[in-house]
Amino acid sequence: MTTDYDSVFKDALAAVRAEGRYRVFADLERERGAFPNAKRYLADGTAQDVIVWCSNDYLGMGQDPRVLEAMHDALDRVGAGAGGTRNIAGTTHFHVALERELAALHGKEAALLFTSGYISNEATLSTLARLLPGAVILSDELNHASMIAGIRGGRGSKLIWRHNDTDHLEELLRGLPRDVPKIIAFESVYSMDGDFGPVEAVADLAERYGALTYLDEVHGVGLYGEGGGVAQERGVADRIDCIEGTLGKAIGVMGGYIAGSAAMVDAIRSYASSFIFTTALSPVLVAGALASVRILREEQSLRDRHQERAATLKARLTEAGLPVMDSPSHIVPLMVGDPVACKAVTDELLTEHGIYVQPINYPTVAKGTERLRFSPTPLHTDAHMDALLEALEGIWEARGLQRAAA
Amino acid sequence: MTTDYDSVFKDALAAVRAEGRYRVFADLERERGAFPNAKRYLADGTAQDVIVWCSNDYLGMGQDPRVLEAMHDALDRVGAGAGGTRNIAGTTHFHVALERELAALHGKEAALLFTSGYISNEATLSTLARLLPGAVILSDELNHASMIAGIRGGRGSKLIWRHNDTDHLEELLRGLPRDVPKIIAFESVYSMDGDFGPVEAVADLAERYGALTYLDEVHGVGLYGEGGGVAQERGVADRIDCIEGTLGKAIGVMGGYIAGSAAMVDAIRSYASSFIFTTALSPVLVAGALASVRILREEQSLRDRHQERAATLKARLTEAGLPVMDSPSHIVPLMVGDPVACKAVTDELLTEHGIYVQPINYPTVAKGTERLRFSPTPLHTDAHMDALLEALEGIWEARGLQRAAA
Repeated sequence: MTTDYDSVFKDALAAVRAEGRYRVFADLERERGAFPNAKRYLADGTAQDVIVWCSNDYLGMGQDPRVLEAMHDALDRVGAGAGGTRNIAGTTHFHVALERELAALHGKEAALLFTSGYISNEATLSTLARLLPGAVILSDELNHASMIAGIRGGRGSKLIWRHNDTDHLEELLRGLPRDVPKIIAFESVYSMDGDFGPVEAVADLAERYGALTYLDEVHGVGLYGEGGGVAQERGVADRIDCIEGTLGKAIGVMGGYIAGSAAMVDAIRSYASSFIFTTALSPVLVAGALASVRILREEQSLRDRHQERAATLKARLTEAGLPVMDSPSHIVPLMVGDPVACKAVTDELLTEHGIYVQPINYPTVAKGTERLRFSPTPLHTDAHMDALLEALEGIWEARGLQRAAA
Repeated sequence: MTTDYDSVFKDALAAVRAEGRYRVFADLERERGAFPNAKRYLADGTAQDVIVWCSNDYLGMGQDPRVLEAMHDALDRVGAGAGGTRNIAGTTHFHVALERELAALHGKEAALLFTSGYISNEATLSTLARLLPGAVILSDELNHASMIAGIRGGRGSKLIWRHNDTDHLEELLRGLPRDVPKIIAFESVYSMDGDFGPVEAVADLAERYGALTYLDEVHGVGLYGEGGGVAQERGVADRIDCIEGTLGKAIGVMGGYIAGSAAMVDAIRSYASSFIFTTALSPVLVAGALASVRILREEQSLRDRHQERAATLKARLTEAGLPVMDSPSHIVPLMVGDPVACKAVTDELLTEHGIYVQPINYPTVAKGTERLRFSPTPLHTDAHMDALLEALEGIWEARGLQRAAA
């Protein structure tokens, strides 16, 4: 008998539903100039006003009038799309300028744009592995799916080190022959717990054992240092060989990039299939990102306000006895510990209180650590927090959810 | 001794240079409203006026005032970026509307957006292979790098059929057990030779042998049928299970998609890592693509003019005795047959005549078949063609290049 393909697909979907992790996307429309306000469209065509509490547009730059003006200008000057791959008619003057700006942001010789952060990681890690025959990639166990895709795609050897455990990393490095090429791949901010990667210690170990360092700064760029991320804030950016970042979170637009030595960046540019054979980023996005990066390099006040808002929300959740995770970064996880309860809480927040935050369930986090993940921005006011706290306290009470340990 | 990473990268670059295929990107700035005119920036900061002859913005939709207006409106209404993955705050009302429009364009139940055509192919083919244990993918030997990446990523079995050779495809199908899931992956327009894939014959074979059909229509969407591509023009779209397309060529913007049955699209949405863990397309791009698709479904005259321009250019090259490949589609390849000559011709066209066309060398095409690849649009005038023909005739004469067989 031949395969009934649709019934295989239906079975696969039934399995996801049975695990309680079938995703229904909220149909949103942000209101420019009024972020974090948005409209949520319902199945019947009507719309509900909501406050977005889970956006990665961490600083609201996606609404910044100067960013939007740069995009309007680019649309009027050059039009919508790039019209080709970077090599075939798709490189615009905006791309060249943004690559220079990003290299400068990180104090590197060169930078290279990709269509997303996912592809930056996938393309660069897989190509590094291919360019360095026999290389071993030492990967933090909590690295993002896109890094894992790149490491798998390179088809080289890999070793997994326990999350943020540099003793374990050193043990693995010590076990490798000196002349084997080594790549240490990790993140500066892990987005689900909001903890920082040990950038200084990794830089030290890399130097001692002759390893190349690859740092994913997607949740750090724009937010730490002078916008260059956690490595810049800690003063070790010059000891990280490859910094990978995104234009789609704090920068507020879309796309990804790497920054590093001229030779490394040129080699990735010349060998990475998913860079070479893809249409270039729209010049409109590139122009917006360029304006945003320039603003972020200047405006420390935005970063200060962002940190203050995150600290205030954490303090208020703690005060209310709610089980907030004590993250050192701008990410505010609130533990629920059960997938069904986690989904029910977010449904009630959304429908009863107009508060939009996604449940974070397995496989994004480990089973038993299901959570809400708030990302307060400089545009979230005390009044927004009042409403959030009131709603959460009521829900926690009514549902008898686990509170913080006293 | 530890590895000197930069010297490994420099060696890799030297290898590319030695083969004569080191790529230098032309730094362009298109002039909105005046396409195919553009400025090319030189190293000294000055700019040269050029005519772009190799853009994949096949119909000039990237300059269409209605597309740009939709993008300006979206910028003003919702801002720059999506601010998150599709599941976490990144689905906007524009995404929902465009997915509906694309499903309708292809007469399918559902569609799903990706950040690029490359990722559409990579994500979908790798996920199909994983969802169908034991599946064999039957792949045309000239399929695009992104399809090959997806097929490799799925880690299933694959069989390669000789380009467009449905006898060979049938031979391979006949050799497989009836109950093995089979996916036939091919393209509707092969972009380097400009030949069409055998869509009707593949649909027949798929039916006979119980295979799922996967068709890359990136060079067909917007251009054939009523904008639905080659499968629509041939009346077989309903017999293709998965149609993959791009928003970055004839549609003029950026991004990619698939269209198919509700169950298949929902399964890809629920399982594909590179879909799930990536920031959604900017709503600005989505709004532009939505306007463009709606226009393309209505305006047959654009497609007629496009075909007429391509036919005219082919006729004029033939008349001049230049070795144009007799492609049946809108793509106009002109053979050179040597990588160094190919690069020299394009350099002379660019610097002496302000005509921008990229050399197409190995590995994009087989060695010995190096070529120029022209993509005339409805906006290329007879005067543009006069200038191109005059330049080519002079160069062919002066360099003693191979002319067409008499």
